[in-house]
Amino acid sequence: MGAGSQKIINDPVYGFITIDHPLILEVMRHPFYQRLRRIQQMGFANLVYPGAVHTRLHHSLGAYHLMCNALAVLKGKGIPVTDNEELGAKLAILLHDAGHGPFSHALENNLIENLNHESVSLQIMQQLNREMQGALDTAIAIFTNHYPKKFLHQLVSGQLDVDRMDYLNRDSFFTGVSEGVIGYDRIIHMLTVYEGELMVQEKGIYSIEKFLVARRLMYWQVYLHKTVVSAESMLVKIIQRAREIIRSGEKLSSGSAPLDFFLSLTPQDSSGWLEAFSLMDDNDILSALKIWMKNNDPVLSNLSAMLINRRLLKAKLQARPFGKDGVEILMQDAARILNISAADAAYFAFTGEHTNTTYNPDDEKINILFKDGTVRDISEVDNALIQRSLSMAVKKFYICYLTGE
Amino acid sequence: MGAGSQKIINDPVYGFITIDHPLILEVMRHPFYQRLRRIQQMGFANLVYPGAVHTRLHHSLGAYHLMCNALAVLKGKGIPVTDNEELGAKLAILLHDAGHGPFSHALENNLIENLNHESVSLQIMQQLNREMQGALDTAIAIFTNHYPKKFLHQLVSGQLDVDRMDYLNRDSFFTGVSEGVIGYDRIIHMLTVYEGELMVQEKGIYSIEKFLVARRLMYWQVYLHKTVVSAESMLVKIIQRAREIIRSGEKLSSGSAPLDFFLSLTPQDSSGWLEAFSLMDDNDILSALKIWMKNNDPVLSNLSAMLINRRLLKAKLQARPFGKDGVEILMQDAARILNISAADAAYFAFTGEHTNTTYNPDDEKINILFKDGTVRDISEVDNALIQRSLSMAVKKFYICYLTGE
Amino acid sequence: MGAGSQKIINDPVYGFITIDHPLILEVMRHPFYQRLRRIQQMGFANLVYPGAVHTRLHHSLGAYHLMCNALAVLKGKGIPVTDNEELGAKLAILLHDAGHGPFSHALENNLIENLNHESVSLQIMQQLNREMQGALDTAIAIFTNHYPKKFLHQLVSGQLDVDRMDYLNRDSFFTGVSEGVIGYDRIIHMLTVYEGELMVQEKGIYSIEKFLVARRLMYWQVYLHKTVVSAESMLVKIIQRAREIIRSGEKLSSGSAPLDFFLSLTPQDSSGWLEAFSLMDDNDILSALKIWMKNNDPVLSNLSAMLINRRLLKAKLQARPFGKDGVEILMQDAARILNISAADAAYFAFTGEHTNTTYNPDDEKINILFKDGTVRDISEVDNALIQRSLSMAVKKFYICYLTGE
Amino acid sequence: MGAGSQKIINDPVYGFITIDHPLILEVMRHPFYQRLRRIQQMGFANLVYPGAVHTRLHHSLGAYHLMCNALAVLKGKGIPVTDNEELGAKLAILLHDAGHGPFSHALENNLIENLNHESVSLQIMQQLNREMQGALDTAIAIFTNHYPKKFLHQLVSGQLDVDRMDYLNRDSFFTGVSEGVIGYDRIIHMLTVYEGELMVQEKGIYSIEKFLVARRLMYWQVYLHKTVVSAESMLVKIIQRAREIIRSGEKLSSGSAPLDFFLSLTPQDSSGWLEAFSLMDDNDILSALKIWMKNNDPVLSNLSAMLINRRLLKAKLQARPFGKDGVEILMQDAARILNISAADAAYFAFTGEHTNTTYNPDDEKINILFKDGTVRDISEVDNALIQRSLSMAVKKFYICYLTGE
Repeated sequence: MGAGSQKIINDPVYGFITIDHPLILEVMRHPFYQRLRRIQQMGFANLVYPGAVHTRLHHSLGAYHLMCNALAVLKGKGIPVTDNEELGAKLAILLHDAGHGPFSHALENNLIENLNHESVSLQIMQQLNREMQGALDTAIAIFTNHYPKKFLHQLVSGQLDVDRMDYLNRDSFFTGVSEGVIGYDRIIHMLTVYEGELMVQEKGIYSIEKFLVARRLMYWQVYLHKTVVSAESMLVKIIQRAREIIRSGEKLSSGSAPLDFFLSLTPQDSSGWLEAFSLMDDNDILSALKIWMKNNDPVLSNLSAMLINRRLLKAKLQARPFGKDGVEILMQDAARILNISAADAAYFAFTGEHTNTTYNPDDEKINILFKDGTVRDISEVDNALIQRSLSMAVKKFYICYLTGE
Repeated sequence: MGAGSQKIINDPVYGFITIDHPLILEVMRHPFYQRLRRIQQMGFANLVYPGAVHTRLHHSLGAYHLMCNALAVLKGKGIPVTDNEELGAKLAILLHDAGHGPFSHALENNLIENLNHESVSLQIMQQLNREMQGALDTAIAIFTNHYPKKFLHQLVSGQLDVDRMDYLNRDSFFTGVSEGVIGYDRIIHMLTVYEGELMVQEKGIYSIEKFLVARRLMYWQVYLHKTVVSAESMLVKIIQRAREIIRSGEKLSSGSAPLDFFLSLTPQDSSGWLEAFSLMDDNDILSALKIWMKNNDPVLSNLSAMLINRRLLKAKLQARPFGKDGVEILMQDAARILNISAADAAYFAFTGEHTNTTYNPDDEKINILFKDGTVRDISEVDNALIQRSLSMAVKKFYICYLTGE
Repeated sequence: MGAGSQKIINDPVYGFITIDHPLILEVMRHPFYQRLRRIQQMGFANLVYPGAVHTRLHHSLGAYHLMCNALAVLKGKGIPVTDNEELGAKLAILLHDAGHGPFSHALENNLIENLNHESVSLQIMQQLNREMQGALDTAIAIFTNHYPKKFLHQLVSGQLDVDRMDYLNRDSFFTGVSEGVIGYDRIIHMLTVYEGELMVQEKGIYSIEKFLVARRLMYWQVYLHKTVVSAESMLVKIIQRAREIIRSGEKLSSGSAPLDFFLSLTPQDSSGWLEAFSLMDDNDILSALKIWMKNNDPVLSNLSAMLINRRLLKAKLQARPFGKDGVEILMQDAARILNISAADAAYFAFTGEHTNTTYNPDDEKINILFKDGTVRDISEVDNALIQRSLSMAVKKFYICYLTGE
Repeated sequence: MGAGSQKIINDPVYGFITIDHPLILEVMRHPFYQRLRRIQQMGFANLVYPGAVHTRLHHSLGAYHLMCNALAVLKGKGIPVTDNEELGAKLAILLHDAGHGPFSHALENNLIENLNHESVSLQIMQQLNREMQGALDTAIAIFTNHYPKKFLHQLVSGQLDVDRMDYLNRDSFFTGVSEGVIGYDRIIHMLTVYEGELMVQEKGIYSIEKFLVARRLMYWQVYLHKTVVSAESMLVKIIQRAREIIRSGEKLSSGSAPLDFFLSLTPQDSSGWLEAFSLMDDNDILSALKIWMKNNDPVLSNLSAMLINRRLLKAKLQARPFGKDGVEILMQDAARILNISAADAAYFAFTGEHTNTTYNPDDEKINILFKDGTVRDISEVDNALIQRSLSMAVKKFYICYLTGE
């Protein structure tokens, strides 16, 4: 699809995405990047929203596109950005999610304890940088916020970064939840840099409010939809059970060498994890589930079959914690239905919690630059919609349990 | 475009709109309804958003379409709605804006004092009802909230009526301000009736928040855009000046008999106004402006030419009132630039104010029906985005003035 | 809405349109350009497609936007385009339709004989060029195809010009006839220049086919919809009747001085027409119709009232001419219904014809540039959809007549 | 997401899809149907169009939605359709693709010889029918065209079936190739039944032309894009090689029991294939490729690694066959690059062909019903775009080969 040395990629969200630098093409051709094709952006959300099967690679391309637009706008406003900085920022955003593993949010911190995707992304960038003789130096400096022009990092990772703008847009688009759509184009046109920091011009206030409200809606309506919460919890339980079986000394294969590696991993020895990680994607998990459906262990086989066939645990979300007595009864029900032990029944009736914050100005502010030169946080403008009362994390409690149906 | 006895109308916003009742077709064919083709929905907003040239007729069709959808959803949920009620509600919404005059919001209460468009709509419906031998009885009862099933009136006129849903959608669509788009389809699917009142199911909370935020954004970013405020103020001043000239005894023709009628109208004698009103539309105003561009009076001719050629007064909006001294100086500037008297200069430098409320629960509540049967206002749900602090009317002050450019 | 010295305009079709040159802003601020706000792009098409009320100004902006994109693509492919040429091409497209009068296609060649809108556009450009001390020299050379780089003219006016691309897109968008949508973005990316001429790269073949088929569909389904044909014919008859009355020596005012000028114009003396023309728009016509509704002449008053109130003559289209006998009978019907003379009845029952060609390679070719360097016309590629048999003009005959309803 | 007993599913293409019959919900909950979640609709098209990752389940839901619309339109026109027929037609379309295997079009007729997906779909329906005590009798009769009302079968499978309408729409949507979009809503509104057969009303002619042209475009630009052709060919070669290895007596596991079953299958004994088939999806293939990347056989490992990492064979398409000599040279190149035998090199340089027909009236006609009661095929209407010359199958030849890059 190239035109001359450019490459043009069709994107249903933005139309056409243009790649016009050989280094970016080279990074995109690397297996580390191609692996992102096989990791869905929204995990199990497609069990509720069947269109939500887009990939991390697609999101990464979209965020890259918005970065191109944002830099063009800033340069058009006279903010100096060198060619090297531009390339660095584009590479940083392209690789910002390269560290996601299969069913990323569900399994994050789970395949390896205390290892989040940002730090894996960094290790992948560093590995690529070695292969490419330092070509990613600037990208890494920007990604890790060690680059002097702070606004470049803020575009990659901040309250208003192109990552969030793309995923809200893209997730809205593919789920069909049109209410999550944000005015990304307008927000980008309203961006500016003041005293080295990324800011939004005064007339962008309402677009920012809309952006935060869209994010809030997407969290509670989509990302933390009770059915998605149930499926993700089931996957976590399955991995936990597989580990338990392996630790007990039984042989258990997932059919995937890298996944087997992670299941047997001990905190004491994790050498070689990055290579294994880079070979793993959603297929390893799904194929394992399909194999484990036939396993002798009733916990592993039942949970796997249920997840594959979308016979999910029933889930409820509420503002207050669920009482212990109720959970106890539901565990007894599960034990009876499946004819399993009380301990094993804990895999089929359990509680948990999720939190989300609409906007937390203590974290990192969204600064509005007024025409008169003053700067105020979005929660401090006149007649603010986004008020400090929204800055508290909202906690929701969930319960998942087996029903006799 | 009919298929059998149905009529199908293409609508860029909703796809196809179906008309399937002869009485509705008859009302649509009436000159009172066809007049709405010649009145733009958003007045002078097209001076800023060039796509915003859609008509009141188009909005009326859209609101009718949403009414069809809403009634189908409610009936699907077992809420009893008779054929006669359904027809009544559809006719009521079809005619709800029939009383709008040219440049409606700008000139409302201006062509005739203390006459708002709702009361004119009612008089037009009553006139049609006489012509149609009482066929609009139910429609009028619903429109005036005298019909026992209160939710039918709430669909026509209330915090969540199909009128607002359509105009937010349609105005967003035609302006290109995509951020005003609302999840009308989802909101409609979440509607229900409880104890005779229109309510929203619990899981619709975030869509309602989004709806209120979209409305807030459209007000401050579009409807009350400073350039639109300037153009509308100029039109009001032009009409005021024309009246002044006529009262002074000079002859002044607008080229339009009905407009001349209104310009000469005295509060003492307004007989015949409804017929004149029903013959008037945006063309009468625009043609008058084009005639008055050549008038001897410098105030009338300058303002008219400026508005026709989009050489608008400069406008500013702010949260605090503008000081008298500043206005005085701007009036002197105008007097000098145009070589007119100090009194006449007041037409070229003046202040005013606009107010808008994001959500006022004292007005009429948006009730959320929870699964457990409780009912709470949207501003009283857990972790509410829409808080009482937003219920105050926000006042913004504007100033318009001539510049020497 | 400016950001720095740029001006950004919201467009529902393309998102944002950016103006970044002071000369373009100056031209846009001129009354000649602002007049295009008051001329609808699609005349009476809104009587069938109520959304189709967009203006010539809006289309002009859209075509300008596509010109910006096309030039950026060509420059990206290494085709040399100087700053002056770029500005010239943008100005030429911005003003290409400045010569349209009210209800352009209906009244073209009608208000002044043998005067088409292109030649008026040229005169308007020349007038502006005088006011602007030659700033439009290049634009005029491109518009009139006297500029050496022929492809610039082809972008303004040719089989694949940005004018057509925009109006197909925009008309589809506003009518809601989604089938008229074309892959403008893809076509533009496939454009190239070869031996000085505009061409399409091989891989754009299917997009071009689609473009020609979309145009064909828009013609027969929208532009030449029988109801639109009826309304436009009625307007032509009204103007014809008004002239007849004036020529007979009776006094007849349209309420608009410029329209009166044109109604009284004789081929012998047309001096001053350009100034009158530049003051006239759709409002002059519609206001005239509203005045003439009350005229004593039954032909003029009936036709005017019918058109204003959308009580149109019934219309039929077919592939063969309508027989004289049938028309005769319909004229007698009209004479009886309205109690008018046989001669006058010819205003209420008449026939006519329209032609359209899907693609005529004899006119101007759409050249496809193959990878091997050969050039072939779109109708001569392998397995061509667009065949020579489609190059004949298709003629359709219509009849319009009064019914007793 | 239910409202009452209804279930509402968000679809980015159509908005909301409503399921309102318990039997349809039951079929959707069956593992046979849920398997379709794990089979992408467009196979390897996402290697070119990264958004094209939607699933067969999603397409099936969409086709079901269009069937609901089409039946509602036909019933609205007075065509009798009983409740049982309506349910049958909906179930038939829901399951019409249930017989697709992993990477369906690539591997069809490949995993089992001479077994196409329609016949597998039928066997799956029959199996479900047994489980559900005959509830699918009508659905099967319609699917196999044994039901008396032929138009019901034509809606499921014919030149204008809802299957094609949905896949064109959906594939356009997810690829971002907006030119493939069809006026499905308009076509459906124009459907009618005449003498028992599905027809299109006269005024739908241009929409049908557009539909056929969109299909033609999607074939050559998307489905048979050279990169997609290359990837699919590589997969076929990989499966072929795996079989060759197994037949040679070597042990080779794919990690998937069902896939191993098919790889060892002999034409003599295929018992048990349906159960194995119903457990297999895209994951089995992709996981196998990831395992085979490490295989000792250089053909298997190289092809697998190349496909996983998107290092595809270079592909070319042309209208004439490729000469033997050229292929021979490319095979020698491959042998040299990979240091493999001449025989093995045939896996890395090979030719093939694809055919597509724009419209073949000999197959099944698209009948247009004229107002005067006559019926003509779309290729026989006046001034037809779709001419008999387009009815020949167009053959394109491709070559795939390894390059030294």
